[in-house]
Amino acid sequence: MRIQSAEVVVCSPGRNFVTLIVTTDEGLVGIGDATLNGRELAVASYLTDHVAPLLEGRDAAAVEDTWQYLYRGAYWRRGPVTMAAIAAVDVALWDIKAQAAGMPLYQLLGGRSRDSIRAYGHAHGRDIEELSDSVQARIEQGFGAVRIQVGIPGNGPGYGISSVEGAHDYEPASVGLRPVEEVWDAGSYLRHIPAVFEEVRSRFGAELDLLHDVHHRLSPIEAARLGRSLEPFHPFWLEDVTVAENQRALRTVREHTVVPLAMGETYNSIVDYLQLLPEQLIDYVRSAVTHSGGVTGLKRILEFGAIYGAKSATHGPTDISPVGLAAALHIDTAHHDFGIQEYMQHTGPVFDVFDVGYAFADGVFQPGERPGLGVRFDREAAARYPYRQAYLPVNRLRDGTLHDW
Amino acid sequence: MRIQSAEVVVCSPGRNFVTLIVTTDEGLVGIGDATLNGRELAVASYLTDHVAPLLEGRDAAAVEDTWQYLYRGAYWRRGPVTMAAIAAVDVALWDIKAQAAGMPLYQLLGGRSRDSIRAYGHAHGRDIEELSDSVQARIEQGFGAVRIQVGIPGNGPGYGISSVEGAHDYEPASVGLRPVEEVWDAGSYLRHIPAVFEEVRSRFGAELDLLHDVHHRLSPIEAARLGRSLEPFHPFWLEDVTVAENQRALRTVREHTVVPLAMGETYNSIVDYLQLLPEQLIDYVRSAVTHSGGVTGLKRILEFGAIYGAKSATHGPTDISPVGLAAALHIDTAHHDFGIQEYMQHTGPVFDVFDVGYAFADGVFQPGERPGLGVRFDREAAARYPYRQAYLPVNRLRDGTLHDW
Amino acid sequence: MRIQSAEVVVCSPGRNFVTLIVTTDEGLVGIGDATLNGRELAVASYLTDHVAPLLEGRDAAAVEDTWQYLYRGAYWRRGPVTMAAIAAVDVALWDIKAQAAGMPLYQLLGGRSRDSIRAYGHAHGRDIEELSDSVQARIEQGFGAVRIQVGIPGNGPGYGISSVEGAHDYEPASVGLRPVEEVWDAGSYLRHIPAVFEEVRSRFGAELDLLHDVHHRLSPIEAARLGRSLEPFHPFWLEDVTVAENQRALRTVREHTVVPLAMGETYNSIVDYLQLLPEQLIDYVRSAVTHSGGVTGLKRILEFGAIYGAKSATHGPTDISPVGLAAALHIDTAHHDFGIQEYMQHTGPVFDVFDVGYAFADGVFQPGERPGLGVRFDREAAARYPYRQAYLPVNRLRDGTLHDW
Amino acid sequence: MRIQSAEVVVCSPGRNFVTLIVTTDEGLVGIGDATLNGRELAVASYLTDHVAPLLEGRDAAAVEDTWQYLYRGAYWRRGPVTMAAIAAVDVALWDIKAQAAGMPLYQLLGGRSRDSIRAYGHAHGRDIEELSDSVQARIEQGFGAVRIQVGIPGNGPGYGISSVEGAHDYEPASVGLRPVEEVWDAGSYLRHIPAVFEEVRSRFGAELDLLHDVHHRLSPIEAARLGRSLEPFHPFWLEDVTVAENQRALRTVREHTVVPLAMGETYNSIVDYLQLLPEQLIDYVRSAVTHSGGVTGLKRILEFGAIYGAKSATHGPTDISPVGLAAALHIDTAHHDFGIQEYMQHTGPVFDVFDVGYAFADGVFQPGERPGLGVRFDREAAARYPYRQAYLPVNRLRDGTLHDW
Repeated sequence: MRIQSAEVVVCSPGRNFVTLIVTTDEGLVGIGDATLNGRELAVASYLTDHVAPLLEGRDAAAVEDTWQYLYRGAYWRRGPVTMAAIAAVDVALWDIKAQAAGMPLYQLLGGRSRDSIRAYGHAHGRDIEELSDSVQARIEQGFGAVRIQVGIPGNGPGYGISSVEGAHDYEPASVGLRPVEEVWDAGSYLRHIPAVFEEVRSRFGAELDLLHDVHHRLSPIEAARLGRSLEPFHPFWLEDVTVAENQRALRTVREHTVVPLAMGETYNSIVDYLQLLPEQLIDYVRSAVTHSGGVTGLKRILEFGAIYGAKSATHGPTDISPVGLAAALHIDTAHHDFGIQEYMQHTGPVFDVFDVGYAFADGVFQPGERPGLGVRFDREAAARYPYRQAYLPVNRLRDGTLHDW
Repeated sequence: MRIQSAEVVVCSPGRNFVTLIVTTDEGLVGIGDATLNGRELAVASYLTDHVAPLLEGRDAAAVEDTWQYLYRGAYWRRGPVTMAAIAAVDVALWDIKAQAAGMPLYQLLGGRSRDSIRAYGHAHGRDIEELSDSVQARIEQGFGAVRIQVGIPGNGPGYGISSVEGAHDYEPASVGLRPVEEVWDAGSYLRHIPAVFEEVRSRFGAELDLLHDVHHRLSPIEAARLGRSLEPFHPFWLEDVTVAENQRALRTVREHTVVPLAMGETYNSIVDYLQLLPEQLIDYVRSAVTHSGGVTGLKRILEFGAIYGAKSATHGPTDISPVGLAAALHIDTAHHDFGIQEYMQHTGPVFDVFDVGYAFADGVFQPGERPGLGVRFDREAAARYPYRQAYLPVNRLRDGTLHDW
Repeated sequence: MRIQSAEVVVCSPGRNFVTLIVTTDEGLVGIGDATLNGRELAVASYLTDHVAPLLEGRDAAAVEDTWQYLYRGAYWRRGPVTMAAIAAVDVALWDIKAQAAGMPLYQLLGGRSRDSIRAYGHAHGRDIEELSDSVQARIEQGFGAVRIQVGIPGNGPGYGISSVEGAHDYEPASVGLRPVEEVWDAGSYLRHIPAVFEEVRSRFGAELDLLHDVHHRLSPIEAARLGRSLEPFHPFWLEDVTVAENQRALRTVREHTVVPLAMGETYNSIVDYLQLLPEQLIDYVRSAVTHSGGVTGLKRILEFGAIYGAKSATHGPTDISPVGLAAALHIDTAHHDFGIQEYMQHTGPVFDVFDVGYAFADGVFQPGERPGLGVRFDREAAARYPYRQAYLPVNRLRDGTLHDW
Repeated sequence: MRIQSAEVVVCSPGRNFVTLIVTTDEGLVGIGDATLNGRELAVASYLTDHVAPLLEGRDAAAVEDTWQYLYRGAYWRRGPVTMAAIAAVDVALWDIKAQAAGMPLYQLLGGRSRDSIRAYGHAHGRDIEELSDSVQARIEQGFGAVRIQVGIPGNGPGYGISSVEGAHDYEPASVGLRPVEEVWDAGSYLRHIPAVFEEVRSRFGAELDLLHDVHHRLSPIEAARLGRSLEPFHPFWLEDVTVAENQRALRTVREHTVVPLAMGETYNSIVDYLQLLPEQLIDYVRSAVTHSGGVTGLKRILEFGAIYGAKSATHGPTDISPVGLAAALHIDTAHHDFGIQEYMQHTGPVFDVFDVGYAFADGVFQPGERPGLGVRFDREAAARYPYRQAYLPVNRLRDGTLHDW
């Protein structure tokens, strides 16, 4: 079975997605997610202009060889654009292979290791009251694990918080020609967060798993202080407590606190974990299928983590398309050292374009039993939602210094 | 002074180049190189679709802030596409700033640290005879340092070697819809190379500096063996002896040989050196201006190297455009811990498009005294050389396994 | 452009300053600060007797080469006298280069990275009441970050505290032929300081940033104890908690506390940070332009710190002249990883001699837009304030043992 | 017994020396050497302007307290100027104390540990023939250990070599307003030296101890290569193989060669050995009494070395005055872990000024039995030899880059 064509569709059913459609000479169609939030067209170009010509005529079953061909054969390795492009090809080929086998993808990854996939939802509010309402809404949806983000007095709405009153969803990317510029002050944040955890813990009890995302904004020693200050409220984890590129930073954090640590949504390669995992500096591996070279890339990372006791917690924001999420759910089903799955829910128009086989209910996912990934892409529907320029925010300190968002 | 426009031109005067042209409201024009060999259009899209709209109206003098805005502000950091795009912006802004100061760029980087910039040339041949002719030709051009690459019996022409008889130039990228597939056998290579060094050393004497590029193809212990076997012929350096992404590999090599080691042309960030430099595993830092975030990015890497005794040896193949090369030459002039500059010569048509202020003679470069970078880009000439799809080769073992090229 | 002369002026408008005046054959005049508190004339001799003859006729634009010439060329490297002398030359040459470019110096260092430069002021008192008055006075001046130093019962006025009732300024150096001898008892100090922080925090609220300088007086384990005991009052930092020369000491402190740590005012070289920074033992780099080889020397240190998440917090006591402070402010404006600037205010007579282009208001600095450093030196005014012998204090334990001051 | 005065005399009986003369109220006179080659007047100023006023009236017997008073009390620690000044005071006070005891100084340091002090001499030549003559001359003087330095073809006379035909003495500092600029090429050096060792070893046999000084000019990996290449000729040591300030560099060298390594003549503090000694990276500690804070400073360093098996090999070039050399000889006599003493012989006019009690014959020194140091300083003679400006050379690579001399 040979690859006949590889086409890229960029659409925006509520938000932008880049989807790769691989068709074989036997008529099988596999799809992959290549969405890179705010840099979508560069990945589309990488695929259309440089990768698609290479795929035509290749053995559709040679998934590993194709991965290496695109990774090592490009000479210029790694990076978000490259790895999102490779991911899309890899996921599409795994989709085809599983369809050819007549099996849901998780079966080819070793079969079912658990009955269902626990997910955590996002709760947020401009203040503790709004946050509490949001937590309550997530509990009512069945979530037993909730990520809580809250506005910091003087810092604006802040990461993870909608500026729309009562909104349960939050989309960080904004449509337009310029990113929103946000404001950050670590001192205010560090003073405010412990009281938030205390209040949420007191309102919702000891059994609700509470997660929190620092989103790369603290220095190592600030992160250590935060970890210590939250220990009495036993968070499920703190995520991205420092800038991810300096893996050494986590050692400083780790020396001071027993709060579980999660990292990885901005990583795209197993190389990004070469210090973190052998030194056991994190507890959860948060890479995304879409940004880490697909099923092939992510499986390797998760198996590396398993050696050192780190569990999977696949990145799952709205900019991971249903294709990328479906791929994650198949891995979640089969991978032994599963931790939890992030689930930031897609909204209506998305499902006009993506017909999904997975299902979420009572706080858990099922990957579905359709052959392959189980997601069908409707090109006509997609055409109704053309690409709109959008950017993730940037972040500045009060003195105007550009800070990590 | 504000940025008025940022435009990308892709042209192919003999080979593909991606050039960014930044124009200010005061009429100054700065240029930057964004060429990523074999993935050119993805960088062009990254710049045109995602970066150019951000630049319009920004303070042209805020070079550091713009670098951070594009690096941290993208959320998805590092990688060859991203860092080539940032490099182009950064070099164009330094070009503008130096023009505004009425000085050649090296003056803003600290002024002149040496009289001239020593360069090494490339020699190659399908066998020792052809290689010797090629070395002789480089010596006649004035080079006192020559990189030698030779065909390995049974391995095809191999990395760095033209398949055209008597050709003194070698261009690895080939025009067309598919990469060339080459063959690699480490055993043959390890058996053959010492005799080549012995012969070249015996023909050309002890004073000619001989360099060699392994191009990421050996395992750490094979690289250690190669290093030891070449010690009697005292190479100036061995380059890229193992796959670059695993920095730890160099420690194994280093423990076994005193041959100087060079690494870095595939790196794009200071993060790629976090183990290599403090552990003093390499002697030469080979990152390119164009692939490392520009003058701002490369200067940081080189200063980091200087702390640990590593000298600069900036990547300079033909896919670094004259703009990227000029930027390197200004850094070479000012940076104290300079080692050597790679120079794989551009050919005639390139200079139809790029009018350069630098000059090469007798084995050394001068950066030139024009204000700014000193390179002028002729858009009309560029239009006569449209982009042509081209790829770097891929490499396979004899059993068909995809190997590092 | 060649250096025509380099002259040293020692003056004492309220306190001693050593200023280097470099004049070029094109009439440009650059100035540098070479003040070494209590050892001023040794630096003046180093410059006048040994360095000035070397400068005459040199290329004024070759800043880096001149730095290396004075640093490596002296054979005897580092140390406070040598590095203050090199700093003065380096700052004067950067001043000249920026004037030649017609730009404020920060533009040559990469341009503006922030809108303004946050500074911290000094508050002190013989007891908590006096200290509170002093904090209040700093707040009224606009400071949002204040260093607090207080008398320890039984220890005399102590470091950082004026013995004059109600004095808001404190000058540690005393005019005369002998240093003042102070008394130190770590036990009293460790018992007293937590209550001071508790009281100041309770009087001035959670948002005021409180800094404290231990001034090298504690053993590593005493410093660790102090750090832990102050954690509830979340200091902005603890400074110089142990003797600086043993970098390893900070590892012991760091293992025990999440209080941010600042170090470096007594350092004069990047070598002093070779353990501290890669091990991430400090959060703020406190070296001075004047004592670290100037702009060239300090920039290298700060970029090294940035790799490991350490921010700049340039030393700024009164013995850093307005020339040294101006140089710091230009770096503060351009360097991305800025933290805070120390500001121990100069008093009236200083400004008779130094006409400054920078401005302080509402807790923040602006470097000013004059070309170069923006400071003009009035030699006639300087002549009215001749040098007066002065010393920093020395410190003894109660049993008479000489202790670190 | 109180110090009555401390005076500095700068004289130049063939070369410059800075001598401190301390007189007590009981009429004892102690002397110390404060010579810092090429920066003499800065140390003289440090002593005269800042230290001498502090000494008057102090207890002459409180050597340790005075050392701490000048070291810790200055606030600005370490560095060549500071430590040479402290050394002069320290040696003068030990001289006084030993005179007061009526004993040669070595008795106060623990008494005699050996019968005599083995020294090594300097041999040098522009080529192997001249070098051989020079070695022969040293053998005839009784030396059984000789440092050999030779001209490198194309590098000029080079470090350690007189440009005067047949001269047995070499003085690197040259009188005048500018340093001599020398040329350095590591490749030529590395190719040439092994043959020199082979020839000298073959001419003079296996029993002569051969030393060699690289004088900080090689990179770590070049130094490792040199070490390996000289192993067949079993050097007594290689000295200063890399730049001293990066102690880590020696680890790279040490991993590759069993050649003994010596380091330290540019160090001035025990802090400079904090990595070198515990990691056992060197075999000989080469600090000078004069540059390391005197007898008090050097004894501490040598005792630290002894813990890790490093022996003493005190720096003894001509710029260490007979006062500094005498102090070294007393330490050499008493210190258990003695290795060897450098002896670069002073010439006639020096002894007009310094009347010494030590004696050299048959390759070994005796410290002499005069009370104290045993050196008398003739102020009238000194006045006949006024200071003459002189500089150590600087060194440049062939491209003009300033290199370590």
